[in-house]
Amino acid sequence: MASDGFQPLTEKLLVEYLKVTPPLAAKLGNDLDKLQIKEVGDGNLNFVYIVSGPSGSIVIKQALPYIRCIGESWPMTKERAYFEASVLQEHGGLCPNHVPEVYHFDRKMCLIGMRYIEPPHIILRKGLIAGMEYPLLADHLSEYMARTLFYTSLLYRTTTDHKSAVAKFCGNVELCRLTEQVVFSDPYKVSEYNRWTTPYLDADAEAVREDNILKLEVAELKSKFCERSQALLHGDLHTGSIMVTPDSTQVIDPEFGFYGPMGFDIGAFIGNLILAYFSQDGHSEKEGARRLYKKWILKTILDTWNLFHTKFTALWDKHKDGSGEAYLPAIYNNPELQLLVKQKYMDDLFHDTLGFGAAKMIRRIVGVAHVEDFESIKEAAKRAECERKALNFAKTLLKERRNFHKINEVVSAIEDLDA
Amino acid sequence: MASDGFQPLTEKLLVEYLKVTPPLAAKLGNDLDKLQIKEVGDGNLNFVYIVSGPSGSIVIKQALPYIRCIGESWPMTKERAYFEASVLQEHGGLCPNHVPEVYHFDRKMCLIGMRYIEPPHIILRKGLIAGMEYPLLADHLSEYMARTLFYTSLLYRTTTDHKSAVAKFCGNVELCRLTEQVVFSDPYKVSEYNRWTTPYLDADAEAVREDNILKLEVAELKSKFCERSQALLHGDLHTGSIMVTPDSTQVIDPEFGFYGPMGFDIGAFIGNLILAYFSQDGHSEKEGARRLYKKWILKTILDTWNLFHTKFTALWDKHKDGSGEAYLPAIYNNPELQLLVKQKYMDDLFHDTLGFGAAKMIRRIVGVAHVEDFESIKEAAKRAECERKALNFAKTLLKERRNFHKINEVVSAIEDLDA
Repeated sequence: MASDGFQPLTEKLLVEYLKVTPPLAAKLGNDLDKLQIKEVGDGNLNFVYIVSGPSGSIVIKQALPYIRCIGESWPMTKERAYFEASVLQEHGGLCPNHVPEVYHFDRKMCLIGMRYIEPPHIILRKGLIAGMEYPLLADHLSEYMARTLFYTSLLYRTTTDHKSAVAKFCGNVELCRLTEQVVFSDPYKVSEYNRWTTPYLDADAEAVREDNILKLEVAELKSKFCERSQALLHGDLHTGSIMVTPDSTQVIDPEFGFYGPMGFDIGAFIGNLILAYFSQDGHSEKEGARRLYKKWILKTILDTWNLFHTKFTALWDKHKDGSGEAYLPAIYNNPELQLLVKQKYMDDLFHDTLGFGAAKMIRRIVGVAHVEDFESIKEAAKRAECERKALNFAKTLLKERRNFHKINEVVSAIEDLDA
Repeated sequence: MASDGFQPLTEKLLVEYLKVTPPLAAKLGNDLDKLQIKEVGDGNLNFVYIVSGPSGSIVIKQALPYIRCIGESWPMTKERAYFEASVLQEHGGLCPNHVPEVYHFDRKMCLIGMRYIEPPHIILRKGLIAGMEYPLLADHLSEYMARTLFYTSLLYRTTTDHKSAVAKFCGNVELCRLTEQVVFSDPYKVSEYNRWTTPYLDADAEAVREDNILKLEVAELKSKFCERSQALLHGDLHTGSIMVTPDSTQVIDPEFGFYGPMGFDIGAFIGNLILAYFSQDGHSEKEGARRLYKKWILKTILDTWNLFHTKFTALWDKHKDGSGEAYLPAIYNNPELQLLVKQKYMDDLFHDTLGFGAAKMIRRIVGVAHVEDFESIKEAAKRAECERKALNFAKTLLKERRNFHKINEVVSAIEDLDA
């Protein structure tokens, strides 16, 4: 064991650990001699074990001091487990229906014991590739985002609580730096980590690197990402961080959590839905077979923002006389002004959402980490065609985002580009 | 002595303290039996002693756990001394010509031993009231602001250093809350602390409280103040926090320091110069006697921004290949794009400066803490006339700030309103 009390798990160690950790042992039925253990960490960063006992299953997640998929050559603080557990607990308290419960956290071991999100839950991204509809997805995700973002912002919090929480999450700087690099920097310069569907997109990738206006806009977004502590974000809210069934939606993996601009979370989700949309032609069993499914994705984008808007402003109304210090009731107490400030706030948030969403799309096409939506399109020419549409739409969205005022205008623009 | 090691100073205690504190004793010539001690804390918050010995003088400043001018009924963390010392040391390192040296800091006693800023230095505000010109003021203050703001921003700093410094200054939350209240809240609502030149400005004060557009704009500024950690600010950079002679400019009292939007500091200084301008007619010995002096104030406003712009962008150029993570050279390395990003950055900063400057003006006319520039105008009707011009200008500036693009347009607008 390292002097800091950290030890990478093995199956044997895991069993020993569970035996001396009552809250976890209890979840498993306290009979720990016939456990089934499966390592399923298909993510890029961590060990993830599913442990099943006679009366239940749990997940054990352990952060390692490097990025697992690359190896020890790319070190990454294991303290991220502390921030992941903190966000799970904080967001879980605010939105228990859509955040898995944490049973146990061990800071030294960087180990989280948490709810096993049982089958038939699958990763949303895989469902979208398979063409599955999730009728409650927009409702659930808008609920998750509205509650987690509203309640951790100055619309609800006092300055004192806010600054203390901001200070704590400043500690998650290594993960923030990683995002800065892969989202806001690498795609806009020559980087050994970048890749794209070559040779088809060679000119497109170069065009991104040479687009002054795009880079000017990206700088503004990066500055907001680095400097604006608006709410406690998930920090990586793409469709691979969400597990779903037709009835249930669970948000996982918030290790990139920090106080940042709300639009970064909302944009991540919507941007990844747009990626899913543009990938559909590559998954279509025959011409037009995914036509209705594509309409469902667009409807989900539309509903997500509109429901988010409704729920977020409803929380604002509900708590307008509460402890939040952004808009004191004694100042903002007339209905006309309340409408004005809400409109301005939501407009700004909408534009942030589109900007961050577009940036998240771009980086998935010409940056280091790609998405299975496109990667699983075998034929490179076909894949490149889908990716190019997505990339062109993202560039437009990033540069022209202030000209959009309602989400249906965005949806129309997607349809126009795809026509 | 309290259990936390804090003890409010008396002259007797002070001498004992100096005797056992070598770095301070040395400054005084080590002969501590014939010290001259004078308590000069005419400020609102602290004890300030000038201690003179055979070979020199020093200032001893001690924070008390309440706001001195109001009394123990308005508690205020004495930890502010820690943040004041931190800013003095940090800014002093960046701009030693314009920040007094700290000789000693005692966190338990909330005590700073620092350079005595000797006569003929006086508080700038008093000089402005007396009609004194300071030909180097714009040059010095622009130097101070350019260096302290640039070097503590992400234009120079790494994300890692930045987030760690932001976290530290989140601790100065009580002082930030006080600013929020007196600058962004109280003037826009009925508050027991507000006052104005009554009855002359009764309708003007009410108009501020009823102006929806003004309140909408103030909300945006407050949100930036609370959420945007752009650079380490002085936090209270008005003309009462600056000591001057014709040759020397020293910035004192940064106890409100924190990571916030740069425009808050620049705006505080320029806003207070505009207040000084509009107060001149009240100090004019005879009609028109201050005409040339008013021109000098306008020139100082103009020079301050323009010199700041030149110096700040020169620092940016100098360090464009440095460690700052906002605009990586590999991305922003073409001259046309460098020009674009600088223009956008400086435009945004200019608008922030005008907005915060205007907010600082408004609060000095209808909020709790007024400025001697106006207060020293004995005749209430005359004072109200000056204040109304300043207030009207500030309201316009706040609401229309985005229509201004150069500082000479602001100066012209002042002259137009004053014509």
